[in-house]
This record gives sequence, C-alpha cells and structure tokens, in this order.
Amino acid sequence: MTDASTTLSAEALVARQKADHGFEQALYRDEAVYALERERLFSGRWLFVDHDSLIPEPGDYFVREFLGESILFVRGRDNEPRAFYNVCRHRGSRICDAQRGNTKTLVCPYHAWSYNLDGSLRRAPHMPEDFDPQAYGLVQCDLRTRHGLMFIRLGPERRDDFAEMMAPFEQVLDFYGSGSARVAAREVLPVRANWKLVIENNQECYHCQIGHPEFFATMSSEYVLAFGAGPDSGPPDAMREFEQRIATFEQKAQSLGHLTGSYVDPADSAYFRAWSRVPYRDGFVSLTEDGQPVAPLMGHAKDFDGGRTAITFDPFTIMIGSVDYACIINMMPKGPLETDTILTWLVDADAEEGRDYDLERLKWLFDVTIRQDGVLAERNQLGVDSEAYRPGMYSLHEAAAVRFHDWYLAQMRQQAPRLAKTS
Amino acid sequence: MTDASTTLSAEALVARQKADHGFEQALYRDEAVYALERERLFSGRWLFVDHDSLIPEPGDYFVREFLGESILFVRGRDNEPRAFYNVCRHRGSRICDAQRGNTKTLVCPYHAWSYNLDGSLRRAPHMPEDFDPQAYGLVQCDLRTRHGLMFIRLGPERRDDFAEMMAPFEQVLDFYGSGSARVAAREVLPVRANWKLVIENNQECYHCQIGHPEFFATMSSEYVLAFGAGPDSGPPDAMREFEQRIATFEQKAQSLGHLTGSYVDPADSAYFRAWSRVPYRDGFVSLTEDGQPVAPLMGHAKDFDGGRTAITFDPFTIMIGSVDYACIINMMPKGPLETDTILTWLVDADAEEGRDYDLERLKWLFDVTIRQDGVLAERNQLGVDSEAYRPGMYSLHEAAAVRFHDWYLAQMRQQAPRLAKTS
Amino acid sequence: MTDASTTLSAEALVARQKADHGFEQALYRDEAVYALERERLFSGRWLFVDHDSLIPEPGDYFVREFLGESILFVRGRDNEPRAFYNVCRHRGSRICDAQRGNTKTLVCPYHAWSYNLDGSLRRAPHMPEDFDPQAYGLVQCDLRTRHGLMFIRLGPERRDDFAEMMAPFEQVLDFYGSGSARVAAREVLPVRANWKLVIENNQECYHCQIGHPEFFATMSSEYVLAFGAGPDSGPPDAMREFEQRIATFEQKAQSLGHLTGSYVDPADSAYFRAWSRVPYRDGFVSLTEDGQPVAPLMGHAKDFDGGRTAITFDPFTIMIGSVDYACIINMMPKGPLETDTILTWLVDADAEEGRDYDLERLKWLFDVTIRQDGVLAERNQLGVDSEAYRPGMYSLHEAAAVRFHDWYLAQMRQQAPRLAKTS
Repeated sequence: MTDASTTLSAEALVARQKADHGFEQALYRDEAVYALERERLFSGRWLFVDHDSLIPEPGDYFVREFLGESILFVRGRDNEPRAFYNVCRHRGSRICDAQRGNTKTLVCPYHAWSYNLDGSLRRAPHMPEDFDPQAYGLVQCDLRTRHGLMFIRLGPERRDDFAEMMAPFEQVLDFYGSGSARVAAREVLPVRANWKLVIENNQECYHCQIGHPEFFATMSSEYVLAFGAGPDSGPPDAMREFEQRIATFEQKAQSLGHLTGSYVDPADSAYFRAWSRVPYRDGFVSLTEDGQPVAPLMGHAKDFDGGRTAITFDPFTIMIGSVDYACIINMMPKGPLETDTILTWLVDADAEEGRDYDLERLKWLFDVTIRQDGVLAERNQLGVDSEAYRPGMYSLHEAAAVRFHDWYLAQMRQQAPRLAKTS
Repeated sequence: MTDASTTLSAEALVARQKADHGFEQALYRDEAVYALERERLFSGRWLFVDHDSLIPEPGDYFVREFLGESILFVRGRDNEPRAFYNVCRHRGSRICDAQRGNTKTLVCPYHAWSYNLDGSLRRAPHMPEDFDPQAYGLVQCDLRTRHGLMFIRLGPERRDDFAEMMAPFEQVLDFYGSGSARVAAREVLPVRANWKLVIENNQECYHCQIGHPEFFATMSSEYVLAFGAGPDSGPPDAMREFEQRIATFEQKAQSLGHLTGSYVDPADSAYFRAWSRVPYRDGFVSLTEDGQPVAPLMGHAKDFDGGRTAITFDPFTIMIGSVDYACIINMMPKGPLETDTILTWLVDADAEEGRDYDLERLKWLFDVTIRQDGVLAERNQLGVDSEAYRPGMYSLHEAAAVRFHDWYLAQMRQQAPRLAKTS
Repeated sequence: MTDASTTLSAEALVARQKADHGFEQALYRDEAVYALERERLFSGRWLFVDHDSLIPEPGDYFVREFLGESILFVRGRDNEPRAFYNVCRHRGSRICDAQRGNTKTLVCPYHAWSYNLDGSLRRAPHMPEDFDPQAYGLVQCDLRTRHGLMFIRLGPERRDDFAEMMAPFEQVLDFYGSGSARVAAREVLPVRANWKLVIENNQECYHCQIGHPEFFATMSSEYVLAFGAGPDSGPPDAMREFEQRIATFEQKAQSLGHLTGSYVDPADSAYFRAWSRVPYRDGFVSLTEDGQPVAPLMGHAKDFDGGRTAITFDPFTIMIGSVDYACIINMMPKGPLETDTILTWLVDADAEEGRDYDLERLKWLFDVTIRQDGVLAERNQLGVDSEAYRPGMYSLHEAAAVRFHDWYLAQMRQQAPRLAKTS
C-alpha cells in the first residue's frame, strides 16, 4: 500500500484529475490514494478536536480517534491541555479504555506503568539498570487551543503554523464567543462513503432544495442559490439578488454593533478557509424550526440580528451558528470508504439545559440535515463504485466544490510539505 | 487484481487445468481468476434477466444486480424495455433506491437531474453554456427479449449475436409458451461458494439419490443415471435402459401433437446449450410431491403428457418445466466466493393464484432441491479451501460437469473474444 | 502472501528483531509473517489436540480446527486413533459436519463416497476403469498419544520426533496421572490479537498483581515475583525468597512419596519445554477460591501436598494442575490477528460431576483468569496497531517472555527444518 510503485500510481492518478469534474473512481476508493492523502493532506495539518470546556479541571481527560489513532487529551497540573497517543511505552498496550474522566496519573492497566499528566514516566518497577525513564515518556502530539477550540497536529511533519492558520478567524471567533461557550451535545454519524464525497456534498447547495426541505425553509431561496456553500458558491450572477438582503441585514447588525462581512482564502492558498455573516429568510432569527430563538445570546451579540455566522476552518470542519447556538460539523475519514461526521453543538457557557434551552429544539436542524447528507453521500458512493461511473461536469451552482477540488489537487501534487515557521 | 502480471498468472493457472478432474484450489478462490472470468466469460455474453411480464406498462421498472452492478430495467413510452446502469451522469449518484415501481421520468435524488425513459437527459439546471445535454444520457446496456425472456449484455465487448444464441430454443420455447407466461414467484438464495462449484453441482445427478430424495422420487432411477443432468450426462451404457421409457413417452406426446426430442451443442461450440423432453417416473405428470397437476396447461400443451421440458440457455441458466409450470434456475457470481441462485417460477399468464394453483405446492420441489444444492456447494467450498484438497477424478456419472469444464477452459483460454455479427 | 518477494521481506523483518524488546508492529500484524510462521513454526511440529478419553470406543470421532484446517479424529476398529483432513478425495467436499459422534464408516454427504475408519476408500460407484481406489484414501496426519494426551503433526514436514519431544515429561505425567484422567469441561475463548501477544502474556507474571487478583490470591507474592511464569522468570535475586518456601513444600511432598523438582530446556534447544512443582500460599491446597480441595486425588498423589504442577509442552500449550484437577491452556492462531485460547479441564477418570466435584467451583480460577488475559492481549493489540507504537524494553520480571522471543527468532531464522529421526 505504501511501497514506491503504488505511491507512484496514486501520484499519477492525482496528476491527471480535473478540478471542474468529479474525480475518477480510484480517487474515491483506492487504499493507495488514501495512504497518499494521509501523508500529504492530513499529516502535519492542524485538525479540529473539540471545545476545551470538555476538560476544565487538571486531571480531566477524554479519548478520541483520529485517522485510526486513539489519542488521549488531558489537562495537566499546570492547567495546560496536552495530547498523547494512547499507547504505553513498555509493551504497547492501550492505556485508557474510558472515553472521559479525571485522573491523578495515567496508569497502564497491563503492568501498571504510570505516567504524569505531562506524559513523563512516573514509575516502572523491576526495570534493568540501564533503563532510562526519561526516554520512555508518552508520545506527544502538538495541541493548540484558541477561542476555546482545540486543534491537533498528527504525524512527523509540521506543516502549518497555528497562529498563521487561525489569524483570519480572530475577529469572528471573538464576536461569536466560542471562547466563552460550552458543549451542549455531540453526535457521531458514520457514513459509508469516501470522505471527499462527504465534503463535496458539504461544499455545494445545489442539492439543498431537493435534499434538505427543513434547512431550505430557514433560508431565503436567494441565499441558497448565491451563498448556500459560502461566498461565490453559486452561479456568477446569483449574488445580485442576494446582495440586497445582505445590505438590509448588515445595516441592522451594524446598528447593534455586531460584526458583518466575510472572508475567503485566495485560490492559491495552502489553506481552505472562509467565514461570513448572512441573513436568514424574513422573520427568522435563529436556525430553528419556527425561526425563533432557542438559547441565550452568545459572545458579543446584543440581540438577535437576523443573521447567521458560518466558518470554514478547513474542508473538514465547518461551524454554523445562530447568535444563540452553533453547530460544528467535522468530517473525518476512518478509511478510504468510511467517514465519520461529528456534530458538536455549542451554547453559552452559562446556559443551562431545561432552564435556558430545550436540547431537542436546539439540535433539530443539523440532526435532520446532516443525516440527509449522509444518505446522499452513501448513495453517491454506490454509484461511483459502478463500472459505468464517469466523472461528470459540475454545475455553476457547485463552484465551492470545484474550489475544494482545486485545493485538494494542489495539496496532493505538492511533494515536499511546507515547513512551519514556528511549531 | 487486473494488472498484467496477475492476469498472466490467472492465465497460467487456467492453462494447466484438466477438464476431467476438479480444478485446482486457486480456480475456486482467487480474485485474479475471477477478474479474468469477468473479462472472458461474462463480459459481452447474453445473460438471463427475468420475464418481461414484470414490466407490462410504459414507465414500469425494476432494479437488479449483475456481477456487482445495479441495473435499471424500464419500459419506455414506445413500449420498448431498456436497461441502464443505475448511475447519474452528473456526480455518479445511484438514481433508483426502490426495487420496482412505475415512473414518468427517472429523477436522481441528489440534484434532481432528470432523464426520459429512453435514458436521454431531460433536465439539468444551472449547467455551464458549453454543456451538451445529449452527451449526458444514462449509460445503456444491450437488452433483448424473446418468448418473454429478457437477456442483458454487460461490458464493452459484444461477443454473441442474440438471434444466433436463441436459434436452437425457438421451437421449444414456442411449444412451452414462455411468451404467454408470467412470474408466479421469485427467490434469491445466497450461496457462500465459488460459482463454478454451484454449476458443477447443477451439471451432474451423481449426487441426486443421496442429496435430493424429493427430486429423486419424481423421476425414474433410469432417468437419474442416464439423463439426470441432460443428454449424455451418465455412464455410456446407461441410456439403453432409459431409451425404452423415452420411446413410450414420445409416442404419447406425439399423439397429442406435442414437441419431443432434444438438442445439445457440439463440443467445440462457444455456447453451452441444450434442451430435452423426457418422461417422469410412472404415474407422475407434473413436478409435484404427488406427481399430479398443480396449474393450468401452458403454451401449446393439449394435456399432461407425462414428460418434462428442460432448457440449458448457458451454464448459468437452466429452465425446468412441467407442462403446467416452469422454474428458471439462475446462478450468478457476486464475487469469487459468493454466488446467488435465483429461482423464478413461471405459470400461464391467465392462471390466478388461489383459483388456479396453490403457490406452496407449485414451489415445493425446487424450493427444497435448490436449498439442498446450496448446502452441498458450501460444504464443497469448505473442503476445497483445505491445504489437503487435491483435484479428484470424475465419475462416469459426471459427464456433463466434465463438458462444462471443457467449455469453461476453452472460453477462458481464448484471448480475443469473437465479434458479434450484429449487435 | 507466499511468493518469494514477500517471504523475503518477512525473513528480513524477522532478522532484525531483538529478543529483549517487543517486536516491531509488522510481526504482530502482517500476513507474510504469519505465512512464514506457519511454514517454519507450526508445520511439522507436534501440537496438542485433546485428551484421548474423548474417543474411547472404535468408531468414536470428533472434529477440530487447526490453523484453519478441519481435522477429523477417529478411533479405528483396531482401537488406534487416527487423524484425517476432513476432505473427500472425489470433489473435495467436507465430509463430516458434526462435531462429535460414532460411526461405522466415514461417508461423504455429497456423492456417498465411503471410507473405512483407517482412511482407506471403501466404495466409489461409477468410476472409470483406470480408477485406482488405493490412491484415493483420506489424507492422513501424524497422530501420537502418550499419557492420555493426543498430539498432531500437520504439513508436509516431519520435524520433531515424538518420543524425544515427550521424554522430559514422562516422570511428571506419570506422577500426575493424565493417563487415567478424563475431560470435565472445555471452553474456547476467541481473542482478537496476534498469537504472540497472547503467548507473551502467558510467559510473564509481571501483570499478575494488577491483572489477576483472583490468581494472585492463590499463590504467595514470593512465587509471583520469582516463579510466576516458571523457573527463572523473575528478577535474578527474587528466587532467594521463594526457595525457602519450596524447600518446606518439597519436604512435605517427598514425605508423601510425591514427585518434586523442575525442568527447563537449555537456551539453544529447538523445544521450549518446562515443568515444575511449587507451593501455593500458606493454607491453600488446591487452585480454588478458598484454597480447599475440589475433586478426588489424581494419579499417584497420596494426599494434598500444598503444591501445584505446571507443564509447558511448548509455548502454545501449558498445563497447570492441583493434585485434584488440571487445566490445559492451548493458544492457537486462526490468522495474524485472531487467536483461540482453548481451556480443557481434566479430573480423575472415576470422578463424577455432582457426586465428586462441583463443576463451577472447579472451573472458577482459569475461567476468570484466562478471560482477563484475553482482555489484556486485545488491549495490547490495539496499542501495537498505532503508528506511535515502538518496541519497548522488557523488565527483569519478564525473563520467560524474553526467552520465548529468543526461541521464536531461532526457529524463524532456521531455513531448513531439522529432520525427525523417526516419524
């Protein structure tokens, strides 16, 4: 799977794809392509983990799987969160079975080797004289937190600089208040499809009217056509219709002192980032079934301004928020034909379930919409698996999916990864 | 699986097999052999689908899987049945989830691209100016119907000519009346065995006395020995005993004006076809538990003449019929170690369940017999998987299985497929 | 999996491993390594089967799976037990579905070929004139029985001599009385881990205090440290503490005329054999929850002498016994990532369940302990599967596991197998 000849063939495959068409079948199936993706796309890149309010106290920990690796996230006595591979340095046993908890030390259940919360080896009985405990700390991963959001960097390479990656989001996350939020709910939806089919689906709203009647009802039809997958995601002239609505919304938002505007990375960027604030359909102020508020205001919001905030951290992680709650949609491969879509709902840190919000009402829209997307992606994989599948032409309403293809091909064709300026 | 070196090795394996022995283990297991079989044996060959009474009206459709491909069969406004790969030309989504129904247009549930019943693209919104709708019709498969029986041809090659393939069956299907029949029932039995083990089992009656007591009771022991798997399937001198029974039967059948006789392709044919009309045991007139009629007469039959009709369209498809009902046994691989045996029972188009026949009584014999065959083939696979398995010598009672081996090896050793005279 | 290049690579992998460390990930995962193990480690070696009291009468048989092969064990009319591959010589069908029974002949359920209990072909109807029945007997495996224990030798090679292999166990099995025992219970525990992780776990007691509280309570802490995985399995100076206990036990045992002592193969032996008799914790006389007797005395034991008998036939088969019952722990791979741990409990042939022993009380210790070991091995595999896994250093308390590594590497590096002196 990773020998020279197969890697070459994955590279050759990547070399001949076109951005404005679907990719060839092999890109949605082959182990060799997936191995190359792990190396060129996922290794060394900052990947979203979760909100750091999950581990508020020293000794708090949780375990997550990333690209098949079990990672242990633990807050140290010095209040710093750290990430370690969940693997004992003695015989390689998995250390932590539990998904979440609090502990004073990390003790391997096999032979009781124990580690301090900073990963250093604390005790290993009966070792030979030449054993150097300092050389046997847990294998650590880079971890950074900003505005409450934790990001991990896996693998030997250190491609991206964290501050540089986060820079365009400073203003919007500060307004939005993710730093003073907490997790209200989390759900994992397994999808039997290649991760790129899941992301292509996420990067276009051409399917929204037929595929998402509930979501479609929350936004105006002008939005869906012009802006459904972010700035410039629709046909070239669709924006004209929507701009009038944006102008009205921005006037109201600015009168409240709220942030307005949008951001998209240039086409040749190594990142795939964007954010925007745009209005709902008339009469709606939150992403709920009746358009009415569901939870207390978050961050610097003064009132319900009739708009939503969307952030694309990378193709894998999208945050869509009303001013009263947000849903983070994280799409991560588990193999060439398996993807997990992980939903994390955020509310203000002081909001209390039952008193301040009803959880079912809060979860409703993304619960129903992302399940629909899972069905669409699985059906897409079934067709792509056919000998009759041929890469198709993309519509003008799938411009952001084409940009994702552009970005993917540029990253995959890049032999030597950029070095991070700082770690 | 399909690169030059592996294909060579599958070819080398095929080259050294002997017809009068079991094949080597690899032929019953390897992915590379199966890939070569798809190319040389299944691609470009007419394969039985179903009876066309399944889709009597324009817009009627059904979906079937062939060799891992989902195929959509639909009757057009012009009353012509057509077959399409169930794959949208836009992004490759599977189009049709349902197994059967009626529709005015074929609409992909992903982005609502719609197709006419003849496969042409009907509507695709927001496409760029240079998009040519005519180039984006559904991928079509060759489909032919004769005497009510539909056959499909998959893959890029067009090996066999349909009229040539069907010619020997004209007379017998006309007598039998499959053109004026309809489907009474259908069942799919998955078998965890290589398809050749399923077919070898189907091509000999050496196992019938021990393996099929119910079937054995419907036919004479002379039949089982001499004719159990068709003309010349038993020991050389076994026919003498059975010929007396045939003569008596033919006299009666001819007195009713019924068809008699048999047909077998010559040994060097690219086809593996046969048909025959032979008598049951004394006192039996139908393939039922008590030997008595179960349904109204079919086709040109004037009365119960005491004989059955058997047709081998190819090694994969056998039709065995009394004059009052028929069962089509279709054995198709789903992979090197998985085969589906599909049973389709036909009755006269005017026969009505409950009034004219009892379905359980009608299905009884093949339901019980083909399940027994599934167990035999699975047990055979378990043994063939052993390191102790060695290709064994075939008995004189397995002559048709040896002929199947001959035919298989001839087809598999043929590098360039014959071109069809007409499509 | 078995072509030259892959085998070479498995050999290269084996060549660079170190005995006193964990092996590299590939040794615990790869198909190619497993294929080489089957060839160099399992083929031609005597492997434990079961107690021969399972088939006391002529015609008694049972079926077992070894390394993926179904083997039929049957006692002949001459009272000799024999082992055959469960594969018919005609078309390769599995012959025997049942797990256990009594039969006069072995009849294949496909075409009724029948075999005598000595494996010779008895009847095969309708075969051609040149068919030689003598050449079509069942494929036989070497089988030997000694002191009631059956051992099988699979594969084309005949490496080990049975009498030579069993020689060190004559005295201890005679004392223990396995020859006059019978099977009280049998259990199969499937473990999702490479077989070497299961055996490494079995060859050290570094994990006993944390992993096996029930087992730990039956033995003294001096035992666990010095002797938990047999002679010289603990830190170099740990034996001094335990020797005092051994001396006291041996005095008592010898006063009863019981066997005492121990045996370990030298480091350069082609075998990995050992046995020992050592004391329980004070007050315990049997491996039961309360330390009290559970069943009648076995073999030559005159009284409960306060000690246990442990026998390592090879790394795959350990027998641990009180003087009133024994448990045989057999760990056999089913694939690179699957191992079956099979427990067989023996009691005296005359002991009767209910009257002489309570089965639950008898099974308790090993039932609970070996299940715990299964969890430990599966957790170990999960960690070894990580990209962060690195072979770790072994403690002084894992000396027997290191000796297992030494033995494994010596066997695996040996290109040409030793020839057995006699079969």
